[in-house]
Amino acid sequence: MLNGGSSSGKTGIARCLQAILPLPWIRLGVDDLIDALPPSLLDSGSGISFGRQGEVTVSDGFRESEAAWMAGVAAMARAGARIILDDVFLGGVASQERARAHLEGLGVLWVGVHCDPAIAAGREIARGDRVTGVAASQTEMVHKGVIYDIEVDTSHTESLGCARLIAACVR
Amino acid sequence: MLNGGSSSGKTGIARCLQAILPLPWIRLGVDDLIDALPPSLLDSGSGISFGRQGEVTVSDGFRESEAAWMAGVAAMARAGARIILDDVFLGGVASQERARAHLEGLGVLWVGVHCDPAIAAGREIARGDRVTGVAASQTEMVHKGVIYDIEVDTSHTESLGCARLIAACVR
Amino acid sequence: MLNGGSSSGKTGIARCLQAILPLPWIRLGVDDLIDALPPSLLDSGSGISFGRQGEVTVSDGFRESEAAWMAGVAAMARAGARIILDDVFLGGVASQERARAHLEGLGVLWVGVHCDPAIAAGREIARGDRVTGVAASQTEMVHKGVIYDIEVDTSHTESLGCARLIAACVR
Amino acid sequence: MLNGGSSSGKTGIARCLQAILPLPWIRLGVDDLIDALPPSLLDSGSGISFGRQGEVTVSDGFRESEAAWMAGVAAMARAGARIILDDVFLGGVASQERARAHLEGLGVLWVGVHCDPAIAAGREIARGDRVTGVAASQTEMVHKGVIYDIEVDTSHTESLGCARLIAACVR
Repeated sequence: MLNGGSSSGKTGIARCLQAILPLPWIRLGVDDLIDALPPSLLDSGSGISFGRQGEVTVSDGFRESEAAWMAGVAAMARAGARIILDDVFLGGVASQERARAHLEGLGVLWVGVHCDPAIAAGREIARGDRVTGVAASQTEMVHKGVIYDIEVDTSHTESLGCARLIAACVR
Repeated sequence: MLNGGSSSGKTGIARCLQAILPLPWIRLGVDDLIDALPPSLLDSGSGISFGRQGEVTVSDGFRESEAAWMAGVAAMARAGARIILDDVFLGGVASQERARAHLEGLGVLWVGVHCDPAIAAGREIARGDRVTGVAASQTEMVHKGVIYDIEVDTSHTESLGCARLIAACVR
Repeated sequence: MLNGGSSSGKTGIARCLQAILPLPWIRLGVDDLIDALPPSLLDSGSGISFGRQGEVTVSDGFRESEAAWMAGVAAMARAGARIILDDVFLGGVASQERARAHLEGLGVLWVGVHCDPAIAAGREIARGDRVTGVAASQTEMVHKGVIYDIEVDTSHTESLGCARLIAACVR
Repeated sequence: MLNGGSSSGKTGIARCLQAILPLPWIRLGVDDLIDALPPSLLDSGSGISFGRQGEVTVSDGFRESEAAWMAGVAAMARAGARIILDDVFLGGVASQERARAHLEGLGVLWVGVHCDPAIAAGREIARGDRVTGVAASQTEMVHKGVIYDIEVDTSHTESLGCARLIAACVR
């Protein structure tokens, strides 16, 4: 489970993990959930909304879909799939507790993906994201109180280097 | 569950269903599974491969990941999510039986999405797909022996029209 | 030059033309211009903006970039490239006159791409466009006063069929 | 004009330049040309082809389209557009001379975008490119004999930092 703010580099690390781990791993994340949701759950008001400072708020409907989606991801793992999951713990440790409940009984490696807020903000511009400011606003709050098995920092280490550190911890 | 060949119009119908159904529905499909898999399971030899005539063959590793993924999708539904699933039943009725086993106990509306092979081949060109010939080759085989609750044909009916026919059957 | 509203099917026709015309043709369009512009020219106020009814308004800065871009496309053609250009003549015949001035001295086949507004609106939903309503609002205005060499209608003819009608007029 | 190998970071730098330069700049590059070409010019044999070691070879048809495209880009600049162009000088100094001929009479800032080959190869994996090995193979050859006004290295400097160095040289 990779947790980090937007533009912290989770997807790049996940792709590198798929490339270097000897067995096949499935890559899933919060972006896949968002792609799967109906427009009504992504509109402001009824769903998820992005504030002017980049802060993100989600509705009950979004939260319910997310819970069902996480239950499904856990079931994939129980059915034998090896899964690299990435998420943005907007609620910090409360989000981790929710995830932990879903993943009960499974072997989870909790990975914190850090990135200097100024660097993440620059990468957001370089990626051409239409809404800017999200990266910097999330940098700290997503890690608040969260307990990790390993932490990586993409500020000065490439995705592949971070992936190698993580892979060394994967049984 | 929408079953139909490549370029038959499943994704367009699924998006229209999300737009017209009164409650939120999650949209998932075989393309999401393929996006999630590591490159090694998509390479020829070790994973999925596309033949010169557009025929598709998949390895044991691919099949195992697919089974785990379907188990997870079923678990999402059991956890309360309403899911629009699209698939390409390459094995016809055998694929349906595999899917039926995963979805046991759930209310499933089986939808056949047909399209004239010449029309599907033309849409494949219009979409700019790099590998052509897949659409026409799959048109018939994916429906072989499959039993449906409702069948739509995108040859002469738009996605939204097909979605309305399907929505009328959704409780 | 293919002119038609959003979701009328211009891109699909253009791809089919590339596939069926015997010589290589380059495909360029207003979407490429928009991709090339800086975010500041796409923001409301300083650039292009999409109204609640789907109407589109553009700033002077956008207009200047568009003029330079069209001058360049004309230069590509004068340098020997065969070009399939698609555009949305928001100003109807005035837009055509602007385009005609840029393309002076070049052999141009003016193609009108029509689509029933209800059908275009449905295709907009099926494509998952985030801003809906644009397609229907543009259906009529983009053709106002415009003079064509050939007109096609994607309401009941596939992209490939429309492309065949157009290709027959290309020397 | 930004020249650098695949995955060296040209696009990210170009987006950052658009964001920090006070006037609007248009962003165009070799990827746009490739998007515009017909499939026949991208197939092996008749067009561009990617070898097993990542080397790229292009046909006469591709070269002709590229020349017309560059003539058009130069015309856009002569018509008043400010353009950030990115390219991969597969022929080193010979490519630069070809580009220089097209851009005659225009003010050009030649920018070399360097990246350590091992780092570029890692970024290629992190981006999920299907063909790997291109990045490393191009690292050196694209700069062979090329003369620059300014050179940046993305190995240890972020896109935004590189863009700031370049922007300081833009009149």
